[in-house]
Order: sequence, then structure tokens, then C-alpha cells
Amino acid sequence: MTGPKASSLSGRLHNPAVRGFASDNYAGVHPEILEAIRAANEGHVVAYGEDEYTARLQEVVRDHFGPSAAAFPVFNGTGANVLSLQTLLPRWGAAICADTAHINTDENGAPERVAGIKLLPVATPDGKLTPELIDQEAWGWDDEHRAQPLAVSITQTTEVGTCYTPGEVRRIAEHVHSLGMKLHMDGARLANAAAHLDVPFSAFTTEAGVDVLSFGGTKNGLLYGEAVIVLEYDAGQSIKHLRKMDMQLASKMRFVSAQLIALLETDLWHRSAAHANEMAARLRQGVEAIAGVTVTRETESNGVFASLPTEVADLVRRDFRFYDWDRASGEVRWMCSFDTTDADVNALVSAVRDAMSKVGSPLPAGAAVNL
Amino acid sequence: MTGPKASSLSGRLHNPAVRGFASDNYAGVHPEILEAIRAANEGHVVAYGEDEYTARLQEVVRDHFGPSAAAFPVFNGTGANVLSLQTLLPRWGAAICADTAHINTDENGAPERVAGIKLLPVATPDGKLTPELIDQEAWGWDDEHRAQPLAVSITQTTEVGTCYTPGEVRRIAEHVHSLGMKLHMDGARLANAAAHLDVPFSAFTTEAGVDVLSFGGTKNGLLYGEAVIVLEYDAGQSIKHLRKMDMQLASKMRFVSAQLIALLETDLWHRSAAHANEMAARLRQGVEAIAGVTVTRETESNGVFASLPTEVADLVRRDFRFYDWDRASGEVRWMCSFDTTDADVNALVSAVRDAMSKVGSPLPAGAAVNL
Amino acid sequence: MTGPKASSLSGRLHNPAVRGFASDNYAGVHPEILEAIRAANEGHVVAYGEDEYTARLQEVVRDHFGPSAAAFPVFNGTGANVLSLQTLLPRWGAAICADTAHINTDENGAPERVAGIKLLPVATPDGKLTPELIDQEAWGWDDEHRAQPLAVSITQTTEVGTCYTPGEVRRIAEHVHSLGMKLHMDGARLANAAAHLDVPFSAFTTEAGVDVLSFGGTKNGLLYGEAVIVLEYDAGQSIKHLRKMDMQLASKMRFVSAQLIALLETDLWHRSAAHANEMAARLRQGVEAIAGVTVTRETESNGVFASLPTEVADLVRRDFRFYDWDRASGEVRWMCSFDTTDADVNALVSAVRDAMSKVGSPLPAGAAVNL
Amino acid sequence: MTGPKASSLSGRLHNPAVRGFASDNYAGVHPEILEAIRAANEGHVVAYGEDEYTARLQEVVRDHFGPSAAAFPVFNGTGANVLSLQTLLPRWGAAICADTAHINTDENGAPERVAGIKLLPVATPDGKLTPELIDQEAWGWDDEHRAQPLAVSITQTTEVGTCYTPGEVRRIAEHVHSLGMKLHMDGARLANAAAHLDVPFSAFTTEAGVDVLSFGGTKNGLLYGEAVIVLEYDAGQSIKHLRKMDMQLASKMRFVSAQLIALLETDLWHRSAAHANEMAARLRQGVEAIAGVTVTRETESNGVFASLPTEVADLVRRDFRFYDWDRASGEVRWMCSFDTTDADVNALVSAVRDAMSKVGSPLPAGAAVNL
Repeated sequence: MTGPKASSLSGRLHNPAVRGFASDNYAGVHPEILEAIRAANEGHVVAYGEDEYTARLQEVVRDHFGPSAAAFPVFNGTGANVLSLQTLLPRWGAAICADTAHINTDENGAPERVAGIKLLPVATPDGKLTPELIDQEAWGWDDEHRAQPLAVSITQTTEVGTCYTPGEVRRIAEHVHSLGMKLHMDGARLANAAAHLDVPFSAFTTEAGVDVLSFGGTKNGLLYGEAVIVLEYDAGQSIKHLRKMDMQLASKMRFVSAQLIALLETDLWHRSAAHANEMAARLRQGVEAIAGVTVTRETESNGVFASLPTEVADLVRRDFRFYDWDRASGEVRWMCSFDTTDADVNALVSAVRDAMSKVGSPLPAGAAVNL
Repeated sequence: MTGPKASSLSGRLHNPAVRGFASDNYAGVHPEILEAIRAANEGHVVAYGEDEYTARLQEVVRDHFGPSAAAFPVFNGTGANVLSLQTLLPRWGAAICADTAHINTDENGAPERVAGIKLLPVATPDGKLTPELIDQEAWGWDDEHRAQPLAVSITQTTEVGTCYTPGEVRRIAEHVHSLGMKLHMDGARLANAAAHLDVPFSAFTTEAGVDVLSFGGTKNGLLYGEAVIVLEYDAGQSIKHLRKMDMQLASKMRFVSAQLIALLETDLWHRSAAHANEMAARLRQGVEAIAGVTVTRETESNGVFASLPTEVADLVRRDFRFYDWDRASGEVRWMCSFDTTDADVNALVSAVRDAMSKVGSPLPAGAAVNL
Repeated sequence: MTGPKASSLSGRLHNPAVRGFASDNYAGVHPEILEAIRAANEGHVVAYGEDEYTARLQEVVRDHFGPSAAAFPVFNGTGANVLSLQTLLPRWGAAICADTAHINTDENGAPERVAGIKLLPVATPDGKLTPELIDQEAWGWDDEHRAQPLAVSITQTTEVGTCYTPGEVRRIAEHVHSLGMKLHMDGARLANAAAHLDVPFSAFTTEAGVDVLSFGGTKNGLLYGEAVIVLEYDAGQSIKHLRKMDMQLASKMRFVSAQLIALLETDLWHRSAAHANEMAARLRQGVEAIAGVTVTRETESNGVFASLPTEVADLVRRDFRFYDWDRASGEVRWMCSFDTTDADVNALVSAVRDAMSKVGSPLPAGAAVNL
Repeated sequence: MTGPKASSLSGRLHNPAVRGFASDNYAGVHPEILEAIRAANEGHVVAYGEDEYTARLQEVVRDHFGPSAAAFPVFNGTGANVLSLQTLLPRWGAAICADTAHINTDENGAPERVAGIKLLPVATPDGKLTPELIDQEAWGWDDEHRAQPLAVSITQTTEVGTCYTPGEVRRIAEHVHSLGMKLHMDGARLANAAAHLDVPFSAFTTEAGVDVLSFGGTKNGLLYGEAVIVLEYDAGQSIKHLRKMDMQLASKMRFVSAQLIALLETDLWHRSAAHANEMAARLRQGVEAIAGVTVTRETESNGVFASLPTEVADLVRRDFRFYDWDRASGEVRWMCSFDTTDADVNALVSAVRDAMSKVGSPLPAGAAVNL
């Protein structure tokens, strides 16, 4: 990959100059986050959340999400999602989601297995639910044979890089609430959405009617840590108890909270997300100019999805790690992160261009779009 | 509490000079651990465990636990325990444990709720199981009405500060295996045990017949992170899949592994644990010289348990945070950690002595032992 | 509905002369089954399955399903399905099924909630899976993020009345096994399939490669009771323990077994199922002659699915209870059972014809097929 | 055992003249119950509980348990208990029970595994909880580390044959409610309690403050079937949905309801239970007159617990099946049922006397009481 040799920092086992496009969680920790951890260190503070950092986090979160918001730090995104859905649903509840939702495809059944929640997946054209798509599964209340659809979960930005507008979220929330259901948002990449939309978080969460939110930190430069944020919903004592039994209660919680404070108290969240989005836009621009590459999705956050011949993709992969999104159709995913550089993007674009010219165009002109 | 004023490090919200005796997880992060995190930062590495740090961790763990050992980093101790038991037990399995076991008293039913495991608790005099105590619940195999006792879980060091000798573990393991059961060790404070016993980890784990181990890092100076360590047991693919569905798979796993490497590759694990143990010994010595205070348990790790009049305890609590172990009997728990100082111990002993003299002795001589 | 007045049998609260087409479980108990219960009564026998009836049931089941077959009586179909899947799958397993499968749509998430099994539903044209349809979800083994597809569940006859041929089952089983997965058959209406295909049970179960079978009794005239039948699969001790913890172990099991013996030891299973199938064929013939009614599915068992104007359906419903299958498209389901008579069928056909003529044809000729 | 040869009733595989003392569920079905099933047969009625019998059952249950009572028929006792506790508890709830409770010892962990409920068992002298015993585990609310004790479950009559008086239940209920907890009663042998106490059911259930009740039918002569009876507690829609997902919803529910009606509409419940109790009293009288036999528990229902030399017990077992209660101490359990006869009891007493005289008294006079 790009860059000079690794430094000889004691204990270092990897080459810090290497960056790829596989995932925003292949990146490390933003220096300001590490500094926040350092500042929170030393001395003893109460464990499990009764500390000054977790208290301060509540203020910071209320600044962003409104006076009713309450944040419950957890370890990871799956934990945040399962805990969020569990607080919204009775034991017999089901959650409607896009069939591409992370909760449906990438959490090894944790919602079902840990929380006993049935998912009701719906196919979508672009990873986004709509009231009409939700209605495919929003029925059968009072029928005890049917897992009761009592919550809807949407992902912002979606797993395919698209972004709900505040109006789209509001329309969903109104529909969902009119049917007596609750709305969860999986915000593993919430900062990317706010940066893309150029609006405050609250515009497409609290004000749009989201009930409970999984707020993502790890993919935006944290060492680890996410938060369940309860908005205008009465969760009672549930999250407190559920978080512990779901094994998501950190003992040294001050450090999760300190990271989230550092992210949200300054503009760090926005700087990092906007940068990643910008890198994705630049990457898109670069690859869509290459004959034989077809960008397959809107680029509304930090990921670019494109189709290209498998041989080309595999050639590029010798230098850059990235994932197939759908190997059958030749679609790949390139993710940018807070530390992706212009040079990284240029290098990837060059590599794709070179690979394409080496492999030649095995396809008649115009056929690439059907890859 | 003890110490000078807090520094003005930007972002710092607590007084780093304050230390108490409430819990070893009230302490922060050892500087060498923070440095290891810093060294592992920058650049992109594969997420979810396919990184150089997690690979190196395997070597380090094999050095300590023998050539069959394999480490699976997780977020926290409850996660490590539940995952360990789940890999050892079929769906109809039950685990015999001391009634004081953390899995039974402090995990909000996570073993039952997340893993569907029934616990069969046994009362013990000192937090330690024996073959004879295990036999109270080790029966009824083949009876489908009974949750099948197929594993035993012991804690090293125990929740009341006592420590199994290698011979005691071996005797338990032989008994457990002779009955067709498996042996789990909750090693949230494993380093304290090794330091107390002055033997390598393997002496009372691998060589003593433990099948799967929860290895604790957080209470010994890590920011976060523990590991399930599989010893001479064939876990097949189970832990890989269970860890993800149990929501214990860290995306940026390099940082958990790097911390565990830093702990185990040098003598940091031993230095920190031995120091905490030594502070506890010093504390015990100090308080048992005070009339009206009765030390109630063996001090074989980093905790001191003592009975004293409730008014005295409450007076001391004005300056030092610590927990009641059994409020009814006036028993309290004082925990030391890697950063406890001689001065901290001296200050607590003085505070107890002063409080006792203020309150006076409401009890006739000799009665204190019955508190 | 049809028939004379109710008798005055003491304790009778319903009109025994009324029969409808809502479900085969609206029907009662076949007289030969009641007699079998009576014969098994009186005296004491060992509870929970160690009785002479359950022992004899094994012989009867082996006669039908081959020398490796073992039957585990349970209370109901959901219990049989969940128990079957649970014995086939590890904790991280998922089961591929048709999206119309009863386990997916009508069991209130019991597979997910009781057994922690994620379902991977696939859309089908006719309720039947094929190797090609299975492949839509049969991938991603070793990827810990994905619930592992390790079993396939097919329903025979399907929820929409279609029937797999022995060859179709065999092709599925070979494909499933070649991928390292197991095959479950939900046989709530297994007798209807055998009667329709005119082959022994074994032809499309044991010999076709099914691993574990839910054998249905209730819909074929039993008072209550189904059985998990393990075919050429090594379930070890799992079902014994799982059945109890799944709350499906009957104390007075002799009576479940006696019913199943009565069903399977004679030709009662075939007589009842063939009769119900025949009534459905007759019904189909009757209604497809009515302009405005379109039969929408193959009639390969005891149910007829048809589209007709909603007003017509609602008019017919005044006299006969039956369910909408898809109210949006005007599709209804009429089920026949062991006690459906020619007169019942004639009466329903007449009622549909009358209602249609009353409502008139609101649709242009030929449009009905699009209802 | 006692009695003439088996009849040759077609299909009969057992000797109906044999009766033992192993369990009240070794007995068969009371003739009046079979007749009720026959009366409910024929014709079609709505499945899953919308039938005339289940409607009538509500009236019958209200007559016994008061105007707020609602009955939910289920298949078996474990199902009734799990469903009852699940409706009383949030996901983080725990239930305090006697360590001898059926839910703790004989349900293979179903409460934990199916419902995610942690049990907090308490040792008792006689199988009965008291406010004081409950307090051993009734603490720690708001502590998220502790499974929250929010319900108490008592068994009436207990697993060791003892019976709570109405006053004892009321004292428990008041205590439980004063602590914000709910009270469940496992009434697998509720009729035996009412008969023993010679009061209506309501005296020690509704009027004493029980919230939800498992009402037992099977052990009092039903073919199968129990009911969750909700008393003055607002269960909302929970039981409806939970019963289905717990796999306890009978399709042909009319037959469960018809049996329960037959039991409760007449004095059948009382006749059968009082008879079984009387047989136990007679048995007790018989065996306590035999030197070397020590009756170990109060006989307040249909079971007799006694200690006798193991060799004697094993000798008696050649003719009568019964269980060891505690083999270590030589304690056995003899259960009577609705069909136990005077002759049966006399035969058992004789057998014990004979065995004792054959084995001789291996113990010094007076020592037997310590067996």
C-alpha cells in the first residue's frame, strides 16, 4: 500500500503507513481521542458509570439531541442495536428492517439469540425503508401467531452508503408512530449522515421522531465505544438493567464517556466524518472516469460501491484490501475513514486504472454497467 | 482522599490524586498499557482479529499457558465468563459454582439469560469449591427433568479474596473430569493468584486441568479487555461464532490484543498484581491491630475483608469509598490495585483508627469477632 | 352451516353438526383415536415416556420410517418444529426456509425466541424450496458475522397446499448435505402428502434424505400430539433433554403415544388424509366452474386456495368460517378435514355460486385471474 | 402389584389393574373427564381458544377465583409456571423460590432457558417460604449487577407434601407486595390443598393476594392440561402472546377447556383430591406403625415421605414403583392419586411390614429415626 516504512516504536507490530479501503474500522484511533483517554486516566473514579465523565457526557448529548436525551455508553455497535431494540420491544415483539440491515445480516443473529427479537426484513432498492415498504410487514397486530411488529429499525447512513433526509425520517416516524410502533435508528455512521446532510444530529433524529438511537463512535475514530441514546421515549429503568445483562456495561466507563465527549464536545465528529465523506466523493469521481467501472450506488457518506470485472478487482486487491459487496455481480465496496488521504485515494484510482488497462476490457462497450 | 490537587490537563474532569479502596476497577490504566495502545495505533489493520497483534497474542499466551492454548479477546469479564461456559455446555447444561461466584451474584443473570445456562450454586465456607461441595449438585445425569451438571466454574482468586492452590485445582479438575464434566476458571484476578502463589499461570490452570479460562485484564491495569483462553479442550469453531453472537467481538481488536501483549509479554502482569497483593497485606496488618476491627477472611490476593461497627465504617467512608460486603454483619471489603500506594494504605488505616476512637467501642471486649 | 341440530349430550356446548372450511384443526377427534385413549386408560403406567405405548410406538414408527427411526412425542406442531431444528443446529445456527413457512409466519418467533435460531427466509413461487432457491441463503460459512446456515426446513405438504415429490425432496437433501447442512421436514400434514403421492412415508422422508421430521397428528384427527421423528441422523441425547426444557414433555405420555399408534398401526392415517384430499379435489372442481372464482394454487393436499371478489367471500362467510390467505389480492383458503362430507363441499360450492350471482360480476371477463 | 389380569380391550398394552405409588401422574384419566372430552367432540369449532368451551371455562373459573380471574389453558405444568413467571417479570427479573421448588429442580432450567428468568432459591425446613426466608434474597433493587428479585413463587401444596394456610399465604403476599414484588403460586396440586384446608380455592389464592396461579389438572385426573389463571393482576396482552411463543397454545383447545370445566363445574376436583389425601393419611397411619419406618414430613396432601432402610425400600420396590426422595438419607416418597384404593394402601403397608421383618432391623433400636 501507500507510504514509507513503519517506525520502530517499541511494541509496534504493524506498518502504520499502510491504509486501505476495506472498512472504517480498519482505521485506528484519532489522536484527540487518545489524548482524551490520557486525560481521563490516573486516580480512582467510580466504576460502571457513576463518574464525572459519564455525567458530563449527558450534558454534551443533550446539547446535540435535546433536553430529553440520555446516553448509555456500550462497547460495540451490535450491543447498541440489540439493547436499543430490547428496550423498545416486549418479549413478543418483532422489528421491521431492510433486508440489508446490519442487524439482519452482520450480527450473527444477536437480536434473535440474545434478545429474542424476531426481525421482519423487507427488500429495498437502496437500503432505505419507506412507509410503503414498512407496510409490507406492518400488520397482524393482536394475532398471537404472528411475532408482533412493534418497532422499525432504519440505518443512517445505510449499509449501502445512502442517507435518509430529515423529511424521509420524519415521514417514517410519523407512519410508524401512527401504527403504534417505535422507531430505532442504527447510527453506526451517524456523523457521516450529519456531515453529508449538513444539518445538526437532531434534525434527523430527535426532531424527526426517532425514539432510540445507536450512536456510533468506533467507525469515526474512537478506540472503542458506542452509546444507546434514548430520545423522547420513556425507557424507564430498562436500559440500566438490560445493558448489564447484555454484557455491555463497561467497568471503567469513564474512558468510553471521555472518548464520546471528545468526539461530540468539539467539532471532531464533524471534521472526521466530513473528511471521510469528501474522500469518498473524490474516489467516486476518480473511478467513475475509468471505462469498465460503474458506480452502483449514490455516494452519500464515506463509502463507494462499484462494479468492475472480477479480474480487475482481484488485481487491485494485491495492493489494497477491500471487500466484495456482491461477488456474483462484481460489486465491491470501498470505505474511506478519518485518516484516508488524498494520496491514498489517488493511489487506489491509479491502481484501478492500471489494472483495468492490464486486464483489458473483456466486455463490449456499455456492457460494464450490467456487471 | 489522599493526595495533592488535580492537574489542569485539558479534558480532565476528575481529581487524579484521589484513590480509594472500593474496587480494582475504580483504578485507571497503567502507563505501559496506554503506551501499548499508542504503539498499535495509526495505519489500517484488519478488523475483528485477523491482525498482527492478535496473532502475536497467541504466541504470548502459549508461552504462559502451553502449546494448546488459544486466546479469544473480549470486552469484559461477564462476556468472558458467559462465552466460556457456553462453549463448554450443551443447551441443556448447568454449571455448578459457589453461591458467592460472580457469575451467580453480579452478572444480572447473563449466564441464564444470554446463554440459557442454569447455575447450581453451592454454599462454601470461603468462596472455594471442593470435590465434596461439588458433589452436592453433581448428580442426576440422564434425568431429563434436571438441568444437567456438565461444568463446574471456580473463581481464582475468589470473590472473597481466597486463592486455590495448584493442588486444590488439580483435585477439583480430576474429580470434575472423572464425572464427565468440564472445568471453567473465572480468572478476573488470575494475576493476583499467580503472584500470591508465586508460580506460573500454567501451574494452576493448564497443568491443573482447567479446560477454559476467563483471563482478566481490566482489574490489573488494562483500559478494557479480557480473554477467553481455551486450554486443553477442543472448542472447535464454537468460540468464534459465539463471541460474535454474544456481542463480544471487538472490531478494532488490535487494541485489546496489544494491551494483553503488554501485560503478558513483560512482567507487568506480575508487578502490578504483586504490588496490589502487597498493599492488601499491609492494609490487613494495619487494621487488624485496631481493636474493634476483625479481619474476616484470609488475605490471599488484593482484597481485605473485615468486620467493624457500622458507625465506624460510615465515618471512614466520608474520605474513602468502599463497599459493604455484608451490611447485616458489618463486613466490608477493601480492594487494592496496581496504583495503591503505601501512603494510601497508611491513610486508610489511620482513618479507621481515628473513627474507631471517635465512635468508641460499643461492644464488650471480644464481641467484635461476632459482628 | 350444514346439518341437523346439536344433540343434548351432557356437557356439550357446541353444535356438533356444524362443520366449516377454516382449518383442519377446527375438526375434532376421530372416533378410533378416542377409543385408543380409552384403551390406554386405567391403572398406573410410568410417566414421561417409559411406558408400553411409547415403546410400541417406536416399533410402529420404524415400520413406516425404517430401522433407524426414533419417535419423540410432543404436544404441538410448533413444539415439534422448534425441537427438531434445535437438535439439528448449534447455538450459532440458522435455518433456511420458504418465507411462507409456518415456522417463519405462524409461530410467533418461537424458533428465534425459545431456541435462538435465526431463520433465513426465501421467497418461492409455490411454497416449495429448490436447491437453487436454497443457494440464495446458503453461503457465508466460517464468517462469524453471519448466522450460520446449517439446516434447511421444508414443509410437506406446504402451507399453500403443494406437495414435494420424492425426487424433489431427494434433490434438496443431496444438495443440503453436500453443503454440510441438515434437512428438516415440517410434516404437520405429512399424511396428506403420502396420500396425495400414493407412496409410503419413507419414500419422501427417510429414503429421500430427511434428517429430522415433525410428524403431525392433530390435523389428521388426533386430540393432540405430534412427534419429532429422528431418521438417519445421530441426535445423541439432545432431544431427550431439549424436549423437557422446551416444555414439550407430556407426563401422561402413554396417551399421546396411544393416539399415534392408532393412527399409524392401521390405515387410519391414510383413510383420513386421503378423504380430506379427495374433498379438496371435489371442492376445487366445484369452485373452478364458477365464473369469477380463480383457483390460485395446485391442489395437492387438503386445501384449496382461490381468488374471488371480497364481497362474495364475505357473503359466503356468513355461513362458513374460513380465512383470507391474502386479503389484498382476494385470495382465500378452504381446508378440508377427515370429517368433511360431500354434502359440506356441495353446500360451500352452492354458497359461493349463490353469493357470486348476488354480488354480480364486478369485474370484466378474464379480470378475475388478476384478483 | 394389586389386582386381577388386564382386560383384552383392543389396543391395550398395559395391565389396568396395576397401580403404584410413584406419582399422581402415573394414574390415568378420570372417567368423567373422558366423558367431557367425548361431549366436546364432533363438528368444527374455532381453534386456539375462541370456542364455547374456553368461554364457559372463564365463567367457571370466575365462580371459583372471583370476578377478575381469567384462565389461559396450557399443555403442562412447566408451561404454566414459565408462562406465569414470564408475565410477572421484566426481562431483567428474578424469582425467589424454595430450593425444593419444582421450577428449580424439575423443569430442566425451562424458566432460565425459555424465559430468561433467574431463580433465587432459598433453603427451607419444610418446602414453605416465609417472609423471613424471602428476605434472604429480597434485596438489591436498583443494583444493575443483580438479577432483580421482582417475583416470589410458592408451591401449593409443596413438593414435600406440606400446605400453606390461607393466613400464611396472605402474610407472604402482603410482604411481597410491600416490597414491590409479585406473587406466583404453582398449584400443580391446588385441589389437594383446598381439600386439605377444607376451604374454597379463593381463600388461599385470590383473597390471600396471589397474583398469578398455575392451576394443575393433570395430577388430579385430567388427560392433559393445566391453566394459567390471572387473578387481580393486570397482565395486559402479555399472556396471549407469550403462550403462543412459549409453544403452549393448543389448537384444539376446546378439549383442554372441556376437561377443566368438568373438573371445576362439579365437585370432581374435590372428590378426587380429597380421596387422594385420605389415602395418603391412611398410608401414613399404616407405615408409621411399623418399627424402622419414620415418617419425615407433615402429611398435608396426597404424599407420604418416610425414611426406611434402603434394603427394605428396594425389597418393597419389587412390587410397587415409587421414588427415592433423598437416597442418601433413605427418604422415599409415596404418592396417592384419585384412583388409589384402600386395598392398594393396605397392600403397600403389608409389603413394607413384610420387607422390614425379612431384612430385620439392622439398626439399634431408636436409630431408625436418624436414617
